[in-house]
Amino acid sequence: MPKFDAAGLLSAVVQHAESGEILMLAFMDSEAIEKTRETGLAHFHSRSRGTLWLKGETSGNVLRVKKILVDCDQDALVIKALPDGPTCHTGARSCFYRVLDGDSLTPVGEDL
Amino acid sequence: MPKFDAAGLLSAVVQHAESGEILMLAFMDSEAIEKTRETGLAHFHSRSRGTLWLKGETSGNVLRVKKILVDCDQDALVIKALPDGPTCHTGARSCFYRVLDGDSLTPVGEDL
Repeated sequence: MPKFDAAGLLSAVVQHAESGEILMLAFMDSEAIEKTRETGLAHFHSRSRGTLWLKGETSGNVLRVKKILVDCDQDALVIKALPDGPTCHTGARSCFYRVLDGDSLTPVGEDL
Repeated sequence: MPKFDAAGLLSAVVQHAESGEILMLAFMDSEAIEKTRETGLAHFHSRSRGTLWLKGETSGNVLRVKKILVDCDQDALVIKALPDGPTCHTGARSCFYRVLDGDSLTPVGEDL
């Protein structure tokens, strides 16, 4: 049912299932969606490597999927998940840890 | 500073600045980011029409931007905004109003 773009992908936003914080954004193809639903762990498609990618495969910081929401035109997903540890490869809780502030990027406060 | 893909776009997730609900996902090019920052109202790039698009231009349901977050690799944004009315063109509060449930899509509960 999902509608993929010309590259066979759609955008997937990962949101913390309890706090509502947005943790990351990545891309899924049909294989990534299938693996995610089969295992309960978020899988994505790496655009740079062109391969299936289990989030947390090396770090152990997997995302345990609780619910998948679909948007009106079925070309974007919200993955509600509980993370094992920080989601960002930098060690930040969320990949969105900076605010665009004038011409610079400043760290977000804890209220986000 | 943002990093655009081959088509000159990046993904932008709109999140309600108070409730944390994810409202929609769309694409921005440099013009859309500039207009958004200049006016305080979310602008996007329509991939189907190939033009700049002020969200709410016809419906009046604009998104008043409070904060813009940038992710670790600077190719995705979270737009924290307060919406004037429902965000989805269907009249739903959020474009993500359905849950993937087995092989079907069911309406989300109010807890989302």
